[in-house]
Amino acid sequence: MADLFWPGDERAGTVFDEAAFLTAMARVETAWLAALAVAGIARVDTTVDLTALVGPDDVEVVAAAAESGGNPVLPMLELLRSRTDRDTGAWLHRGLTSQDVVDTALMVCARDAIDRVLAEVDQHTVRLAELAAAHRTTVMAGRTLTQHAVPVTFGLTAARWLTGVLDARDALAAVDTPAQLGGAAGTSAAAVEIARLSGADDPAKVALELTAETAAALGLTDRSPWHTTRAPVTAIGDALVTATDAWGHIANDVLLLGRPEVGEVSEPSRGGSSTMPHKANPVLSMLIRRAALTGPGLTAQLHLAAAASVDERSDGAWQVEWSTLATLARRTVVAASQTTELLAGLEVHADRMAATVASAVDALLSEQRSIATKAGVDDGPADPASYLGLNDHFIDAALARHQETRP
Amino acid sequence: MADLFWPGDERAGTVFDEAAFLTAMARVETAWLAALAVAGIARVDTTVDLTALVGPDDVEVVAAAAESGGNPVLPMLELLRSRTDRDTGAWLHRGLTSQDVVDTALMVCARDAIDRVLAEVDQHTVRLAELAAAHRTTVMAGRTLTQHAVPVTFGLTAARWLTGVLDARDALAAVDTPAQLGGAAGTSAAAVEIARLSGADDPAKVALELTAETAAALGLTDRSPWHTTRAPVTAIGDALVTATDAWGHIANDVLLLGRPEVGEVSEPSRGGSSTMPHKANPVLSMLIRRAALTGPGLTAQLHLAAAASVDERSDGAWQVEWSTLATLARRTVVAASQTTELLAGLEVHADRMAATVASAVDALLSEQRSIATKAGVDDGPADPASYLGLNDHFIDAALARHQETRP
Amino acid sequence: MADLFWPGDERAGTVFDEAAFLTAMARVETAWLAALAVAGIARVDTTVDLTALVGPDDVEVVAAAAESGGNPVLPMLELLRSRTDRDTGAWLHRGLTSQDVVDTALMVCARDAIDRVLAEVDQHTVRLAELAAAHRTTVMAGRTLTQHAVPVTFGLTAARWLTGVLDARDALAAVDTPAQLGGAAGTSAAAVEIARLSGADDPAKVALELTAETAAALGLTDRSPWHTTRAPVTAIGDALVTATDAWGHIANDVLLLGRPEVGEVSEPSRGGSSTMPHKANPVLSMLIRRAALTGPGLTAQLHLAAAASVDERSDGAWQVEWSTLATLARRTVVAASQTTELLAGLEVHADRMAATVASAVDALLSEQRSIATKAGVDDGPADPASYLGLNDHFIDAALARHQETRP
Amino acid sequence: MADLFWPGDERAGTVFDEAAFLTAMARVETAWLAALAVAGIARVDTTVDLTALVGPDDVEVVAAAAESGGNPVLPMLELLRSRTDRDTGAWLHRGLTSQDVVDTALMVCARDAIDRVLAEVDQHTVRLAELAAAHRTTVMAGRTLTQHAVPVTFGLTAARWLTGVLDARDALAAVDTPAQLGGAAGTSAAAVEIARLSGADDPAKVALELTAETAAALGLTDRSPWHTTRAPVTAIGDALVTATDAWGHIANDVLLLGRPEVGEVSEPSRGGSSTMPHKANPVLSMLIRRAALTGPGLTAQLHLAAAASVDERSDGAWQVEWSTLATLARRTVVAASQTTELLAGLEVHADRMAATVASAVDALLSEQRSIATKAGVDDGPADPASYLGLNDHFIDAALARHQETRP
Repeated sequence: MADLFWPGDERAGTVFDEAAFLTAMARVETAWLAALAVAGIARVDTTVDLTALVGPDDVEVVAAAAESGGNPVLPMLELLRSRTDRDTGAWLHRGLTSQDVVDTALMVCARDAIDRVLAEVDQHTVRLAELAAAHRTTVMAGRTLTQHAVPVTFGLTAARWLTGVLDARDALAAVDTPAQLGGAAGTSAAAVEIARLSGADDPAKVALELTAETAAALGLTDRSPWHTTRAPVTAIGDALVTATDAWGHIANDVLLLGRPEVGEVSEPSRGGSSTMPHKANPVLSMLIRRAALTGPGLTAQLHLAAAASVDERSDGAWQVEWSTLATLARRTVVAASQTTELLAGLEVHADRMAATVASAVDALLSEQRSIATKAGVDDGPADPASYLGLNDHFIDAALARHQETRP
Repeated sequence: MADLFWPGDERAGTVFDEAAFLTAMARVETAWLAALAVAGIARVDTTVDLTALVGPDDVEVVAAAAESGGNPVLPMLELLRSRTDRDTGAWLHRGLTSQDVVDTALMVCARDAIDRVLAEVDQHTVRLAELAAAHRTTVMAGRTLTQHAVPVTFGLTAARWLTGVLDARDALAAVDTPAQLGGAAGTSAAAVEIARLSGADDPAKVALELTAETAAALGLTDRSPWHTTRAPVTAIGDALVTATDAWGHIANDVLLLGRPEVGEVSEPSRGGSSTMPHKANPVLSMLIRRAALTGPGLTAQLHLAAAASVDERSDGAWQVEWSTLATLARRTVVAASQTTELLAGLEVHADRMAATVASAVDALLSEQRSIATKAGVDDGPADPASYLGLNDHFIDAALARHQETRP
Repeated sequence: MADLFWPGDERAGTVFDEAAFLTAMARVETAWLAALAVAGIARVDTTVDLTALVGPDDVEVVAAAAESGGNPVLPMLELLRSRTDRDTGAWLHRGLTSQDVVDTALMVCARDAIDRVLAEVDQHTVRLAELAAAHRTTVMAGRTLTQHAVPVTFGLTAARWLTGVLDARDALAAVDTPAQLGGAAGTSAAAVEIARLSGADDPAKVALELTAETAAALGLTDRSPWHTTRAPVTAIGDALVTATDAWGHIANDVLLLGRPEVGEVSEPSRGGSSTMPHKANPVLSMLIRRAALTGPGLTAQLHLAAAASVDERSDGAWQVEWSTLATLARRTVVAASQTTELLAGLEVHADRMAATVASAVDALLSEQRSIATKAGVDDGPADPASYLGLNDHFIDAALARHQETRP
Repeated sequence: MADLFWPGDERAGTVFDEAAFLTAMARVETAWLAALAVAGIARVDTTVDLTALVGPDDVEVVAAAAESGGNPVLPMLELLRSRTDRDTGAWLHRGLTSQDVVDTALMVCARDAIDRVLAEVDQHTVRLAELAAAHRTTVMAGRTLTQHAVPVTFGLTAARWLTGVLDARDALAAVDTPAQLGGAAGTSAAAVEIARLSGADDPAKVALELTAETAAALGLTDRSPWHTTRAPVTAIGDALVTATDAWGHIANDVLLLGRPEVGEVSEPSRGGSSTMPHKANPVLSMLIRRAALTGPGLTAQLHLAAAASVDERSDGAWQVEWSTLATLARRTVVAASQTTELLAGLEVHADRMAATVASAVDALLSEQRSIATKAGVDDGPADPASYLGLNDHFIDAALARHQETRP
């Protein structure tokens, strides 16, 4: 998969793409059916694997038939039934509602995406920790409101980037991805009824076990139905955008520091121009920045959908989530990967940093001089390295926090 | 094309999909090359058609190679050059920059989408005019802040819907779709230089003619380069979202009036439930509402990209637009088509409207009674049809405005 | 009025502030009452001026009492009635509904804001036209994707800025601000009834005249009620954000070109730092950029409110608009004024532009050399001024468009 | 404080209003100055309280002078210096930068707002737990996609609302509010330098203590400077919007269930109409819904500002946050309070619920019948109470989770 409108999309591979979603829906049906079979309710093979019956080639037909019922579950079921035996077809989806399948499949895909992002993030933090440690004495001009302020180091800059990524890591690591298995209106009435009619002594207990087993089989957590309480979805969005925020900050800095007039860092060599072969464009940074500019809007859509929840299933708000979450997740995976590459190959031009500092030394040390004057002491030699405050401490704090995330 | 995450997407067919965009880029190159040839600059066949050389099967490879340069133009050129003769390949894209091709292709696709939406809108207005005229005496309860207010008619409701759609129609009809042909930094320097080296007497004049001819060949308007002045893009977004706003309003009303406890209108029969066969879900309305809930966010992305413009080509903001505009355009086409179907088959239950009015007549006429009391007159018979104010006038005004849009 | 959270807010003065809104609501009641009196319906003085009865000191009490009914009209009416004679009080607001008063007052305030913005915009365009004309030969480095591309001029940069502002001017000039006078559910039933009971021969005609006269008295246009067809509101948002987009682009360029490493323009001197007295921060640009970053989100709120319209008055969506529109309007006025000051005092450092060009001449002319090589000609002297393409033409086109807007 | 554009604003009292922000800034300066004095650096009284020197009457003058430097700190310092002795004035703000003061004051105000919201939330959960327990056998129609589905209970509905609020409570309780005390570019260089010149043995250690003590005095946590790593700000937004999402869901349900045709719940009596005295509008719900519709956009602004971070202080993005965060916080406090009142007085009409169920019993039990038919059993009596599945279990689970939050 690649996307002509979103260069770099292929980095996300099949994560949360349409085929992955279709497969995830089939996985949900498989896990539920197996639970029914294990419980002795469904008279079908307990090891049936419906995911083998659908594939990327089925996406188009399922998608094109989805409008009729408003979601893709009905056409997927029709397809599965046409490819399996009558008994399996008869027990398939018994006790579930479309939203159960869609929502649980969204969580399966989201879990995959979050895990992929976390794997990239762990590469970011390792590399940023290296940069922070390696450049703790590489003095550069601190810049505030676009103008030179006081000296900083590139190590501190890297430590700040690291802190942003660690904040995102905390948010991502805290995300819970629950299954949704509540039936028509979130009461699990059908599951209980089926269990009762199958002769269960405690149909409610059986229904709860069905849910627990299905969630476990899918690597998801168990939770009471959340058809119209959508915090599980918005929490994913909040975590993903916290990550794109952090990378956007890095990309903005690289884009500015990499302007020819500044020249203090360079992207790993890539890119080129259709008419000016000399140009080395900071492609990764600008594509990461692109993702960072769209993350907030996508996450806001998820919150808006949550805020518009109504009844036992929402009439339009719920349907907003699917494409929004998939798009946000894929873009985040792509940007994560691009950030890994950006950081891995980032070139730091300490000489240009030093040259900037040298030419701006008066401005950079004006605060120090002002303090000296107020204290009535001679202001001594103009050495930017003498005015770095808690540079080392802040770098060490970021490194220590990073170490806590290491196995 | 269909989209598993956006049921109904197939209604948009190939409008502004990836293959259409690839073809549009090839059309831009074709038109420019033809202009170069006609001007005697490029020594190639003036009737070359590069769009025949690329197709849907090429999307994946071009897309996957787009990240390297940050946009899909370079890989498309490489593909075209591999499939054409050396001379054509040599003259291809001479004088253009990637952004010219991407932006102009976006406008080609946007023009197609807008035309499609306008064609649907013209069906909406015809149908709404019929409903407004047919139901000008069908009294129903006016509802404000969810509660019964004073009587209205369903004809007036339809006239209000019509007004919203006509407002959108005005916005859509006013959209200008200019070509973008400015070269590396929007000066057309390369085009002038090529003209000069080809021996033109007035190279600037030739360059202007190249632009004018290319725009005309593509059905676009001519305009000075707008690489970082993006009002042409945001104006498209503003018009499209004005349309989804108007349809969202209709969908909201249908969803509410179609609730079983109200029952005053019904969607054309569709839908169904995976477990409750009796259910007739208002699928079209909820999918239209879905689009209406996402239009504002997508349009805001386009404005944000415009607001983040910088330099002669933006470093991330520009790249936000492609997917955003395509998504917004397709969703609008889909919702337009769904609205056509919704309105065409909408069932109006005048009996239920009358029943509601009868049961709520005291509330609906309390304002009228209050006026009578203040005027010291007997308040007469409680006839909701006697308290419709300018109902007829407002319906007629909407119908007249509609007539002005007819050929 | 100033706003501690939005430095510069005082530039907007009383435009669309709370007191202005309260006064505008009183103006609406005044105009309607006068129309009733002129029509011989209300037996009150035709020249009553209710706006003299309320002022800034009343804002708090009206605001604090607004929640009970969900909007500020009821408490304002109570206040007005307590300050006028019994007859006036009795006729006050007859035939109107709260939404009429709120919406029409919003339009009165919006009209004021738009006029203020347009007045600033006319200063922008004059100044930008001067800059474009004055600097048409001031060569500077064109920059794309942050890197040096081909030469441009500062005159062309100013012409681009001018074009963006002229696009916004077109959008602003096209905004219609209609009155809203439809009564409880948009039928004008109460107005017709009152006219009827006052003995009018043609009550409908009288009601239409009341509306027309009220709109005219307020400087607004006449339109059928638009309680839940909100394109008049969203069109204002679209125009205002198109303006902040254009100024944001200018601010971004000034912020970048004004970085010490580039130094090609400077803001008019202002600002300063709490600890570094040497610093001259580009305060105006960053505050303009701030507004540009928030305009899209505010406009999206207006569209979302429009898209959530329902019934004859919306249950939450309508109430979103008031604060959103006022905030957007004031911020736009503030940014307009800041842009006027920014442009008036903008310092252009042609020497630094020339120095950048000189140091980057190889990169800036590489495209020109490449064309020469392909043409097999000697590439001649490396003169950036020789590679400006249609620079003059594009500047002239912008200037000509500007001239068309001059009286 | 009240807000004519946002009815109900006065419920937030002074929380995060302009005066509170000014006072918070003075508190930050006070705490820092005291820390300097305790450390023996500043030769001033250790118990000075600058907050006594400024008040609501100073807001206007400080705000109006804030544009010059781009933020309100400089004019506040000028004011404080004019009202205190020379020594205090000389030591005031030493070692800090404007952003330290603004950001830390934002956190002081945010902490206050969050605590206020949590206090309301604890009232919500108690009331919702009561409703869930009291109505666990109150059968009502489950509604999905606007149509009748299977039976639920009002107790389950309340339990779902409770779950949404508990999700928000978790998010709010997890919010960290750190102080920001890093000096000009986040290195604490000035603090270290001042400590050094005052003769400290270990100036770095002293600087860290200054920070720790100041944070503690303000009730905030300590953290390395986060001038351009803004997750602390976005996390607040994410938590607040999660709350408005949850209340929006409740409000939507109340608005729908309270429509006259449904009539299953009513708001506590309030409101009224300017022309229709009989109307009882669901004012609280629609105002809560209003807040829920704007929360996502405001939170997205905070994320966008974070994503646009650059350098050691951002040039426009930072300035976006102040008004956005204050507005979001106040609106959330207002909506929290409105939700408390809504829930406290919510009237549940079990008779109407029963009537709906009775009239729709065939639809509501069609799934049950379908299961029976498939199982080949007689479908027994049509008793909606027999088809509630895990209703009790899900209510109990929500109640148990609620209990865990009780002291």
